[in-house]
Amino acid sequence: MAIRVAVDAMGGDHAPNVIIEGAVRAIKSSGGRIQVQLCGSEKVIKPMLESHGSPAEIEVFDAPQVIGMGDSPVAAVRSKRNSSIHVGLNNHKESLADAFISAGNTGAVGAASLFVLGRLPGVFRPSIPTPFPTTDGVCTILDVGSNMDSRPEHLLQFAKMGSVYARTMLDIAHPRIGLLSVGEEPAKGNELVRSAHELLVNALELNFIGNIEGRDILHQAADVVVCDGFVGNVILKLAESLMTALPVMIERELVEIKAKSSSANLIKKMLTGLARRFDPEHYGGGSPLLGVEGEVLIMHGSTTAGAVEQCIKLATRAAKMNLTSEIQRALSP
Amino acid sequence: MAIRVAVDAMGGDHAPNVIIEGAVRAIKSSGGRIQVQLCGSEKVIKPMLESHGSPAEIEVFDAPQVIGMGDSPVAAVRSKRNSSIHVGLNNHKESLADAFISAGNTGAVGAASLFVLGRLPGVFRPSIPTPFPTTDGVCTILDVGSNMDSRPEHLLQFAKMGSVYARTMLDIAHPRIGLLSVGEEPAKGNELVRSAHELLVNALELNFIGNIEGRDILHQAADVVVCDGFVGNVILKLAESLMTALPVMIERELVEIKAKSSSANLIKKMLTGLARRFDPEHYGGGSPLLGVEGEVLIMHGSTTAGAVEQCIKLATRAAKMNLTSEIQRALSP
Repeated sequence: MAIRVAVDAMGGDHAPNVIIEGAVRAIKSSGGRIQVQLCGSEKVIKPMLESHGSPAEIEVFDAPQVIGMGDSPVAAVRSKRNSSIHVGLNNHKESLADAFISAGNTGAVGAASLFVLGRLPGVFRPSIPTPFPTTDGVCTILDVGSNMDSRPEHLLQFAKMGSVYARTMLDIAHPRIGLLSVGEEPAKGNELVRSAHELLVNALELNFIGNIEGRDILHQAADVVVCDGFVGNVILKLAESLMTALPVMIERELVEIKAKSSSANLIKKMLTGLARRFDPEHYGGGSPLLGVEGEVLIMHGSTTAGAVEQCIKLATRAAKMNLTSEIQRALSP
Repeated sequence: MAIRVAVDAMGGDHAPNVIIEGAVRAIKSSGGRIQVQLCGSEKVIKPMLESHGSPAEIEVFDAPQVIGMGDSPVAAVRSKRNSSIHVGLNNHKESLADAFISAGNTGAVGAASLFVLGRLPGVFRPSIPTPFPTTDGVCTILDVGSNMDSRPEHLLQFAKMGSVYARTMLDIAHPRIGLLSVGEEPAKGNELVRSAHELLVNALELNFIGNIEGRDILHQAADVVVCDGFVGNVILKLAESLMTALPVMIERELVEIKAKSSSANLIKKMLTGLARRFDPEHYGGGSPLLGVEGEVLIMHGSTTAGAVEQCIKLATRAAKMNLTSEIQRALSP
């Protein structure tokens, strides 16, 4: 039976165009193994779908309301119950869809997921595992900002959820879990990290490799890097900004060493390749919201049709692998 | 009158050689305006000085004990009172020297400074402002790891001390102070940062520009970036590791775009230039330990003769500018 993915057609900077195009691509390349439910304004989506030949594998679910990037997540979740996010999540809740994806307001998707689907039993705080470029490819960091002021037991849960994610979604048999700190020794770090270290050492089911430092992340010292959402958010944004800062820095160096313009072009080409490493599309298009009762995947607001296509496929993988049940099993005492 | 700088001759990975060479360079290039007091094992240092012609501006103060990188700072400070660090600090304390510099065990230099010189009145926690490369040159981050588990009033003091440092030592008339957070809005961030924001807004003598995010640092959004020592340490080490990770990442890109080896050489040259931005020598050789009763400057353990020369000059600047009195004035109510 085909996997059915509900898609928020209205979320993201370039919605609904890129979302629809991504959905069309996904069903074309999947050979009938995927069905898509586009949730959003029917009168906007239908004509656009027609221009793509209205594929039979794509259904439209009307959702007249839109939650914007400026909306307060919690308020919008309560007041806009006919939003594309609600309609999609409801389809998943009622088992009409096997997963839901959105490039919309991340806060609203998170809040609505908790509101419509609920939280997995025992989960303190849902978290979104996020890819981080390394010399070896990519590692996964969580949390990166959904959660401020974590407690040690939160970090332990991030580690458990991250481990399941890496195993089921990234095919890493025994993901190495590293705790981000300021030194390798267990006594190093702040109170939060020192206490979390103790909990992690005692979680024997995890492949916990101990503390790692800021300098180790890029060298892929761990497959899953566990940290407080504040720290994770700061380093993620710092890394992303490299792709705008490096060209400026490199340009200055090129002037200083009097490089020829042909060389400058080469370096530009190299930088474009490097930037791909920091591009969400390069990493499968989206990340699951771990800790809610269902398969919800979140895309970057700036998502492209290619990333949407990939995220739909990721969502089918999450559904097939029973990601949420695996998380639940890992968290039960 | 010449400024007298006491120098820990035994601290650092390449001590005493590079320290002595740096001292010789500093007095040669200063035209008699600097005197250096080398503190360390007399029988090791004297013969080495002779090979440099035993300049009259360099005095040796015998210190038979050495505090190593493996020593516990607090224990060493109590048990090794004839260490090169103690002898140098005592010279400063007794006004035989106007400043003290060391490339030794940072924890031990900090602990010994508090022990010998004491803390400035009202200072919660001394901190070392640290240069961080940006597209525009460099900004200053504090704290970067001397202090874990900061309170809001600690961050306020870091801001005040960092502002004085940037003004007196870096010639920035009105340093822009940014508070590192996860969003621009004052309500964004963890509890620590939200409370610190309020304190900073009310510190009218500061040029506080509000919250900055991880992505803003490299783009020189602030001259002084204030954060908790845990976060500062993580991002500093992450940035330093770029210089080892980037060549690996770039090499892969070059293979992928089939670059010629001549281009690869150019890129290597460019990377060397880029790496200079992350090199302590490039930034004056050392940073003051702010918040203690005296001018103490700390160098990287891997310091070079050139960096030692620069740090000696920085120390004379700190002494001339009365850095410590300026800090004290900024902190008094």
